[in-house]
Amino acid sequence: MSTTPDSAVHAYLTAHRDTFLADLADWLRIPSVSADPGHTPDVRRSAEWLAAKLTATGFPTAEIWETDGHPAVFAHWPSDDPDAPTVLVYGHHDVQPATRDDGWHTDPFEPHTADGKLYARGAADDKGQVFFHTLGVRAHLAATGRTTPAVHLKLLIEGEEESGSPHFPDLIARHADRLACDAVIVSDTGMWSKDTPTVCTGMRGLTDCQIDLHGPDQDIHSGSFGGAVPNPATEAARLAAALHDTDRRVTVPGFYDGVIPLTDQERALFAELPFDEAAWLSTAHSHATLGEADHTTLERIWARPTAEVNGISGGYQGPGGKTIVPATAQLKLSFRLVAGQDTDAVQQAVRDWVAAQLPDGIRHTLTFWGATRPCLTPLDHPALQSVVRAMGRAFGQKIRFTREGGSGPAADLQDVLGVPVLFLGISIPSDGWHAPNEKVELDLLLKGAETTAHLWGDLAEHWHTT
Amino acid sequence: MSTTPDSAVHAYLTAHRDTFLADLADWLRIPSVSADPGHTPDVRRSAEWLAAKLTATGFPTAEIWETDGHPAVFAHWPSDDPDAPTVLVYGHHDVQPATRDDGWHTDPFEPHTADGKLYARGAADDKGQVFFHTLGVRAHLAATGRTTPAVHLKLLIEGEEESGSPHFPDLIARHADRLACDAVIVSDTGMWSKDTPTVCTGMRGLTDCQIDLHGPDQDIHSGSFGGAVPNPATEAARLAAALHDTDRRVTVPGFYDGVIPLTDQERALFAELPFDEAAWLSTAHSHATLGEADHTTLERIWARPTAEVNGISGGYQGPGGKTIVPATAQLKLSFRLVAGQDTDAVQQAVRDWVAAQLPDGIRHTLTFWGATRPCLTPLDHPALQSVVRAMGRAFGQKIRFTREGGSGPAADLQDVLGVPVLFLGISIPSDGWHAPNEKVELDLLLKGAETTAHLWGDLAEHWHTT
Repeated sequence: MSTTPDSAVHAYLTAHRDTFLADLADWLRIPSVSADPGHTPDVRRSAEWLAAKLTATGFPTAEIWETDGHPAVFAHWPSDDPDAPTVLVYGHHDVQPATRDDGWHTDPFEPHTADGKLYARGAADDKGQVFFHTLGVRAHLAATGRTTPAVHLKLLIEGEEESGSPHFPDLIARHADRLACDAVIVSDTGMWSKDTPTVCTGMRGLTDCQIDLHGPDQDIHSGSFGGAVPNPATEAARLAAALHDTDRRVTVPGFYDGVIPLTDQERALFAELPFDEAAWLSTAHSHATLGEADHTTLERIWARPTAEVNGISGGYQGPGGKTIVPATAQLKLSFRLVAGQDTDAVQQAVRDWVAAQLPDGIRHTLTFWGATRPCLTPLDHPALQSVVRAMGRAFGQKIRFTREGGSGPAADLQDVLGVPVLFLGISIPSDGWHAPNEKVELDLLLKGAETTAHLWGDLAEHWHTT
Repeated sequence: MSTTPDSAVHAYLTAHRDTFLADLADWLRIPSVSADPGHTPDVRRSAEWLAAKLTATGFPTAEIWETDGHPAVFAHWPSDDPDAPTVLVYGHHDVQPATRDDGWHTDPFEPHTADGKLYARGAADDKGQVFFHTLGVRAHLAATGRTTPAVHLKLLIEGEEESGSPHFPDLIARHADRLACDAVIVSDTGMWSKDTPTVCTGMRGLTDCQIDLHGPDQDIHSGSFGGAVPNPATEAARLAAALHDTDRRVTVPGFYDGVIPLTDQERALFAELPFDEAAWLSTAHSHATLGEADHTTLERIWARPTAEVNGISGGYQGPGGKTIVPATAQLKLSFRLVAGQDTDAVQQAVRDWVAAQLPDGIRHTLTFWGATRPCLTPLDHPALQSVVRAMGRAFGQKIRFTREGGSGPAADLQDVLGVPVLFLGISIPSDGWHAPNEKVELDLLLKGAETTAHLWGDLAEHWHTT
């Protein structure tokens, strides 16, 4: 099996670029916000749109898979070589909430292109990165003259990733036979930068929760009662503040249990990357770094577990002042987890810790929205080399290694299907995931398609030699 | 000068009760919320309504006094005895914010009477307690046959008390000559209970502020950046949490400077009151007491300075989760102050403390809404005895002593006018100041009027003997 000719791939991509982008824009117009019950019909519409598009792409099988929450999409295009390896591509079709009021310059669900960038909620996270696979597999066929892919190609595109994938473990357990594969390719991550293409070797896990605190049965006068009864806003603040010690380490007992420490090799590889703190801060729209003592910024975001306050509220928030002790307060917390941590154990540790912090007179409820397990691919895994070679051809550069601070349900796939998980993402830090004015770079989208146009041949060729 | 006959006072109050209550209801319909700029015209309308009503009551002088904020009302009814003492009654015509959504059973600005109680925002705090003076002075005249009050009677009813009286010191300084008096009567406080009438001997001061914290320039992804940059919601929580130590003492350096400690006599008087913790908690709509170590609940709310979180907000507050590091957070804090504390010094201490707490990368602004100074009347002050006697006649019971945890600009009057400040309030703890379903007890409103019907004669009689 020979490698796919570059020129034929380029010709195909050039010829189909405009149609590809117009189709992607249609998909981005569907506000598939999984966290907001008001958008439930839109998440289903997004799944149906994708299934129809995969059928049109040529997948003989393209199905909606129901869950107890939002639906996923499964597609399968078998190779005509029965001995070919089977690859499962993972992505998601749901998106984060977005409204103009958050600071978007244009409607987040009306894609617009400017200066080589496509702006829309989901452009990078993750519709764009799912969608380049449709163009990539067609380019692979066109450039090789094949009628089926060189690998048995499966896609599983879920609809609840932005809500912590609560039904994903059940989904893949139920369909484990149809999802059977030799490797998973996750396309829901990023690269170091436009100029430094990288392959990601692991993702952090995530579990997030909401804590509702109840003090007085109604707002009460702070002069008549303040200083003598528990204040739920104060207690919410004390919880949030007590999450970290002065070294910004998480204080929840047992939180760090099992954490696989960074090796000297990994710390050295991180340190080799061209990290520019000022540029990184600019991408983070932030004005200083702050995090766990004795760790670099990259170590903090890639390889260390963290706790974050995503939202806090309680009491009067209108103009001026209102001298009350509020009746209620609310805290939204998320915990990023790394390989070795057990999500169930972390949730229990948080529950125990919260209950132990609160004084008499404050009732609370704690709801975890979901849990996504961390995962880590060994640096020397042979299948990783196929991804590195395919990316190297598309980008014409040496490919380096990173990890991903964000989270995806990759570890569930790894555990349930018993196969290695590889990462192929073309997003870059400035793409603004979860933020206003999310975008994707058009040329990188096409490099993603080009990488997969090379990848399936490379994997098929090298699989049995590894 | 003989004392006012009880029967004549009763007859007057009975005959004029319905008109009095109907007039009060008209005033309560004006939503004079001083903290909300949207209600600025209503605060003015409230002042104009009151001035017209005082003119109708018989005050030869009833004027709107402008400030740089909301207007106050001044009225003057000289006695025909030039040697009579001059008394200045203080109250306020502005009210706390209130909407049905806060938990009101009926429209807060559409008064309704049920079971001997009048429900409306401002019914007790403070329109009801201002308004009983109009009925009381007429009863005083009717029962004594006088055509002018036995004292030179002045009223100053301000429009910014619920906003911390930011322009009150300037107002009284500008008009000090017209406000000149021998004593101030503040009608903006409460009694121990319906069954235990009391005179208040001091009020706590108040200063409240808003702190806005700015971290990232926009909300950012907590997976990509969380754990490596400062989070303003976390920092708001850390500020709020750091306000108190584990003994619930305020940690701001210098906060307790100058505090006049409780005497053994005062602690004993507090301890003699029939304090029922379960009943008090019920009134507080709370489920446990919590406050400064080594102090009783009454000491905490009456005689100790406190810090309270009135509101906190930052980040995502919609349904479900959103894994962000938020761009901004906000904290609304109030500080109750006691005699001996300097409000300017406390504000500066808070400013210094906040600035010292925040890490690099978090910008902040801090705005104080205003300051109300604490005040304390000596237990043995002779003018206090007139109030105690007049209340004793109206209530037919022994009058005991309390303090007031809430705040009013009494100390400014004391300082600028150089006179003692006395307190005459008929509200009770269950009246729900600043809370939903605020109400006033109709029979206590009339006891307030009855007290003043006796008070002016008693003061005139005893003034020159003290």
